[in-house]
Amino acid sequence: MSTADITSTEVFEPADLGAQLLALIEGGDETAALEFARLLHPADLGAAVASLDTGLRELVLREFEPDELAEVLEFLDPHYRDLLLADLAPEHLAQILPTVTDDIATDVVQELTVSDAVQVVSDMPAASQESIRELVRYAPDTAAGRMTGQHLSVPGNATVEQAIEILRQVPTERRAPTIYVTSEEEKLVGVLNIRALLISASETAVADVAEESVAVAADMDQEDAARLLKQYNVPMLPVVDAEGRVLGTVTADDLLHVLEEEVTEDMFLLAGVNEEEDLESVSRSVRYRLPWLYANLLTVLLAAWVVSLFEGTLERVAVLAAFLPVVAAQGGNAGIQTVTVVIRSLALGRITPRDTLRIVRHEFATGVITGLVSAITVGIVAWLWQDNAWLGGLIAIAVTVDVLIGVVAGVLIPIALNALRQDPAVSAGIWLTTVTDVSGFAVYLGMASLLVTRL
Amino acid sequence: MSTADITSTEVFEPADLGAQLLALIEGGDETAALEFARLLHPADLGAAVASLDTGLRELVLREFEPDELAEVLEFLDPHYRDLLLADLAPEHLAQILPTVTDDIATDVVQELTVSDAVQVVSDMPAASQESIRELVRYAPDTAAGRMTGQHLSVPGNATVEQAIEILRQVPTERRAPTIYVTSEEEKLVGVLNIRALLISASETAVADVAEESVAVAADMDQEDAARLLKQYNVPMLPVVDAEGRVLGTVTADDLLHVLEEEVTEDMFLLAGVNEEEDLESVSRSVRYRLPWLYANLLTVLLAAWVVSLFEGTLERVAVLAAFLPVVAAQGGNAGIQTVTVVIRSLALGRITPRDTLRIVRHEFATGVITGLVSAITVGIVAWLWQDNAWLGGLIAIAVTVDVLIGVVAGVLIPIALNALRQDPAVSAGIWLTTVTDVSGFAVYLGMASLLVTRL
Repeated sequence: MSTADITSTEVFEPADLGAQLLALIEGGDETAALEFARLLHPADLGAAVASLDTGLRELVLREFEPDELAEVLEFLDPHYRDLLLADLAPEHLAQILPTVTDDIATDVVQELTVSDAVQVVSDMPAASQESIRELVRYAPDTAAGRMTGQHLSVPGNATVEQAIEILRQVPTERRAPTIYVTSEEEKLVGVLNIRALLISASETAVADVAEESVAVAADMDQEDAARLLKQYNVPMLPVVDAEGRVLGTVTADDLLHVLEEEVTEDMFLLAGVNEEEDLESVSRSVRYRLPWLYANLLTVLLAAWVVSLFEGTLERVAVLAAFLPVVAAQGGNAGIQTVTVVIRSLALGRITPRDTLRIVRHEFATGVITGLVSAITVGIVAWLWQDNAWLGGLIAIAVTVDVLIGVVAGVLIPIALNALRQDPAVSAGIWLTTVTDVSGFAVYLGMASLLVTRL
Repeated sequence: MSTADITSTEVFEPADLGAQLLALIEGGDETAALEFARLLHPADLGAAVASLDTGLRELVLREFEPDELAEVLEFLDPHYRDLLLADLAPEHLAQILPTVTDDIATDVVQELTVSDAVQVVSDMPAASQESIRELVRYAPDTAAGRMTGQHLSVPGNATVEQAIEILRQVPTERRAPTIYVTSEEEKLVGVLNIRALLISASETAVADVAEESVAVAADMDQEDAARLLKQYNVPMLPVVDAEGRVLGTVTADDLLHVLEEEVTEDMFLLAGVNEEEDLESVSRSVRYRLPWLYANLLTVLLAAWVVSLFEGTLERVAVLAAFLPVVAAQGGNAGIQTVTVVIRSLALGRITPRDTLRIVRHEFATGVITGLVSAITVGIVAWLWQDNAWLGGLIAIAVTVDVLIGVVAGVLIPIALNALRQDPAVSAGIWLTTVTDVSGFAVYLGMASLLVTRL
């Protein structure tokens, strides 16, 4: 075992390694480039290669043996994995996948077109075909879709010695398989801790050293599975079918990105972008972003119509127009703050529709304070600037009312969407600004029409 | 071992279990309530108790033995843990903490006030004091702050048999300790896979069966450590000091929430809320939200001033006011889409300042299409509605220009803030809307002033 370079104490920036690789390739020294590449950890190598442009990527990929590529795939962030795979021909993939862990091979196959998938899988050895066929049945965003099927089962009446013998016979892999103790009907009875095997007398029955474990249903959402691992603070959990038979194992490291992805999705949806956006394809960006911009356009045209109803007032007091954006911005911003907190709290299960009244009360109280502080500021500015106390008072009232409408709507809209089984992150922001714009302008200009002689 | 209820295939809603517990307590049947509580998994029990109101929480907590509470703490989501701990006296905590894993005990101590922390720690047995003193030195958001210090070291020339003997002597804990092979200077040489111990001949030197491993520096940010685990697709990594000596282990399950928290923080900052917001304290909500609302107020007053410069034009053509919100909204919304994608890409290390030009080009191309489509729609609406083609054309141009300004500023602002070592999520949205409001209104009303005779 080499102990050189064993301690890496920083996160490599894939783009930096990619740049070093690129410099070697562009310097014409392909041998040096490959030597450099082979020195890297497969995880770093993969990210470095993925950061290259398509042509160069192919150049490098051609030089690698299938087992080298398999190692790279094993470690790669799905974002980079998809970039790398885009360049590989199905025949090439079929050579690589049998040496990759089954869960990753399945993820890869599920990303292919149907015809490529059929081609790739039918080119694989029978045993690999079997395990992929087993796993590919599960949707990729479920516990079963995220699990590895590689595990060992021993009956409860087996001895510690027999369990060790079974463990000895499986080929050594990067990661030790989990050993489950199962009943005669193959139902999960418990999990065998390898350390318990090591320190127990060899004639002990494995049922006596196995540990209880909660299990996750095959079709449980991957996000719920991740939350369960987090709640129970365990590194892995067995996945079972409806009859309680063990299908495989989900591990915390395979789910590390799941919770992150789910928040990112909410964050992106709230801003009207798609989580798949990667600043690479303009047509994709347009397709993802335009619907949201368009929906917002329609609602803001509704607000424009409300403003146009007060054309007469605006003609007489043109400066009223200057404060339209102020009223809309304060109500909209206060409302979006509320929407954001409520959406996250709903996603984390920290609040339910039963809490609506309590949260409305909390937000109303918050809105009274933040609304009044903003309103007094903007009222004084307007008064001094236009030398008209009526105008200042009018704007202050409009801002306060719109902030209160914003925070209350900010609670009710996401909770209502959630109750209607809609994802609140998709449209809550659009509904909210519609409400705050329309009601803010109506209150502001409506009052201004009544007071027009004073302004 | 009991096998009843071993298969839990759903995520419990803590609030539901809390409600059941509450019903039993309020029904006056405290014995039944405690019986119900003891049937639950400690993780579920803790969340259920935490969801109760303060008075009831104290009632339940009083009834539990220190070791029962220790089990609950062990499993609890930090959000719920902090709620629970708020009710415990320091003397009570000092009884509980020695039986909790060292990393969790340290997290708890770090949440206390200095005087409580000193009291709690000095009441603990010497051995526990020692390990907490060791861990409390590290900031909670670093790899060392997240690690467990419990691990075993064996010298490389020890035999497999000796390593098994060492493993046999440590007390059985919920989780097996990791075994590291170290050099004479106590530097990390490799990691011992327990399975390798099990299947190797007993006289083999452990150095021959140890595996290489990357290590993380003690002061590495927890987020970078989580990304490293994800990149290398491993369940745990050793944490080392500057001399390469092993300090402890970080595991994927302990970092499950880190990446989620970090995106949540960005999402909340973008909307002007604080990640600690929990819809519980009005004064906290006001304190967190008001500064952002106030900053936005100042920028929108700047926009109001720009509008007021064109008071004469607005007096002559009052309907121009109706389209002010349209121009501002399209530019602002398109810009926020860009800001959101750029902030996430920066956080994930997928783009660097070197990519600025490429991303500006991508966003400009996207903005040309989305801007023109929105602009043509709104232009036609304005033309038909007000029966004035000049007005329609004017608004269409203003929308297109403001969308383009929005998407370009949406790239440059977060990248510039990042280069200035500011967190772009804090203020990028405020700077962006300032730019889109001011320039959108100036372009729109400036052109309108030139064309005022045609409108």
